[in-house]
Amino acid sequence: MDLPPGPGRASPHPEFTELSRQECRALLATHGVGRVAVPTVSGPVIVPVNYSVVEGAVVFRTADGSTPAQAAGCQVAFEVDRIDEAFSQGWSVLVRGHARTVTDPDDVQHLTERAYSLPWAGGERDVWVRIDPLALTGRRITA
Amino acid sequence: MDLPPGPGRASPHPEFTELSRQECRALLATHGVGRVAVPTVSGPVIVPVNYSVVEGAVVFRTADGSTPAQAAGCQVAFEVDRIDEAFSQGWSVLVRGHARTVTDPDDVQHLTERAYSLPWAGGERDVWVRIDPLALTGRRITA
Repeated sequence: MDLPPGPGRASPHPEFTELSRQECRALLATHGVGRVAVPTVSGPVIVPVNYSVVEGAVVFRTADGSTPAQAAGCQVAFEVDRIDEAFSQGWSVLVRGHARTVTDPDDVQHLTERAYSLPWAGGERDVWVRIDPLALTGRRITA
Repeated sequence: MDLPPGPGRASPHPEFTELSRQECRALLATHGVGRVAVPTVSGPVIVPVNYSVVEGAVVFRTADGSTPAQAAGCQVAFEVDRIDEAFSQGWSVLVRGHARTVTDPDDVQHLTERAYSLPWAGGERDVWVRIDPLALTGRRITA
């Protein structure tokens, strides 16, 4: 079959398989970068963030006033995927839940110890945001 | 420097560079899969979609009643990225705009010819959604 140049095309027969909650958890734990959708007054935005999973919650550290920091107090979506564009296959996991800022010093210390082993520079990213999953879903796409 | 096992850690000194509109357009054109954030009554969701860029608009084909189809009529975010997790570097491009369903038969024909060279199977994905960018932004992250 001749394929046209450019990005991979969707398979004419893609198959979607729902992932179990356990599979979603496992895949979520393998990654370091995900994407958070934050509602703003002019509609949602999507921002990549470095994240960790601590006791089932998605946590990330960001700068005060940044777009990811605006997630706090909102119902948000957080997505991780691995997609092979050439073969139109892969998986995606979606976390939906309420995001909140972690401010208690003990909780911050707890997250700092568990989420990142490497120290971060300066005081620029001192806002911890935590998303506790209300819904955890995922699917695998095979060509 | 010893790195802990597991997913890549954020660089202690990440640098963010804003991409020009031209760079954003060029990067957007190199990909086949992006992620659309769709507002729903219970908060936003993020769904990967196969997309094309036709005359500056992001277009994708989906099934009637699917989550991506719910984007139509909404202000949405559409994101494409390439991130190297091990080295905490990469780029992301964000399209923000109003999504609408393309229903005019001539317009559908136009999109079908330009967006995908390969035929799609069956009649399951007969809804075309088009996002005309109101804002196009991007950034490069270097470790």
